[in-house]
Amino acid sequence: MAVILQIHFPFSGPFGDALLEEARPMAESINTEPGLRWKLWTEDAQEKRAGGIYLFDTREQAQRYLDKHSERLRQSMGVENVEAQILEVNEPLSAINRGPVQ
Amino acid sequence: MAVILQIHFPFSGPFGDALLEEARPMAESINTEPGLRWKLWTEDAQEKRAGGIYLFDTREQAQRYLDKHSERLRQSMGVENVEAQILEVNEPLSAINRGPVQ
Repeated sequence: MAVILQIHFPFSGPFGDALLEEARPMAESINTEPGLRWKLWTEDAQEKRAGGIYLFDTREQAQRYLDKHSERLRQSMGVENVEAQILEVNEPLSAINRGPVQ
Repeated sequence: MAVILQIHFPFSGPFGDALLEEARPMAESINTEPGLRWKLWTEDAQEKRAGGIYLFDTREQAQRYLDKHSERLRQSMGVENVEAQILEVNEPLSAINRGPVQ
């Protein structure tokens, strides 16, 4: 059963295209995380927040990544307040709405 | 620029396959919402929560759907505490991680 990991945290920028070159090495490293199917990078420049939505194979893999990423955000950017949720995906209902579970 | 709408709310069930037949008409109606690209149905049976992650073409479409769906949850299920966020998607970074933006 695939799971969604949602993460949000305060972020002062850069946003949009300006974030691409700065974050490209992290994006490439994320592709090597065990069980990762995909990540959507989310941001809100007005509210100064950033985050991500990840699909993992299992809850255990999502939790391990969350622990690692929270520590990385704390060490590299001083982020102490990572909000996170891990949620199961209802795959048959998502399939009706073209929800991407692969 | 595509946007993500995240919704969560308290939910006592059913979950998983047991929710499929009950919620199928709503899932089919959601396919007709203007600007919807996809929806993932999320749930947490242990914490008694349910929700969804939606990708819309524009923030305005996401907001209109959120207003409509919040009212529907209130009227049909008595849900008063819908938590929601609308976030921009960073498309070039998401593309590196196979993030589904179509």
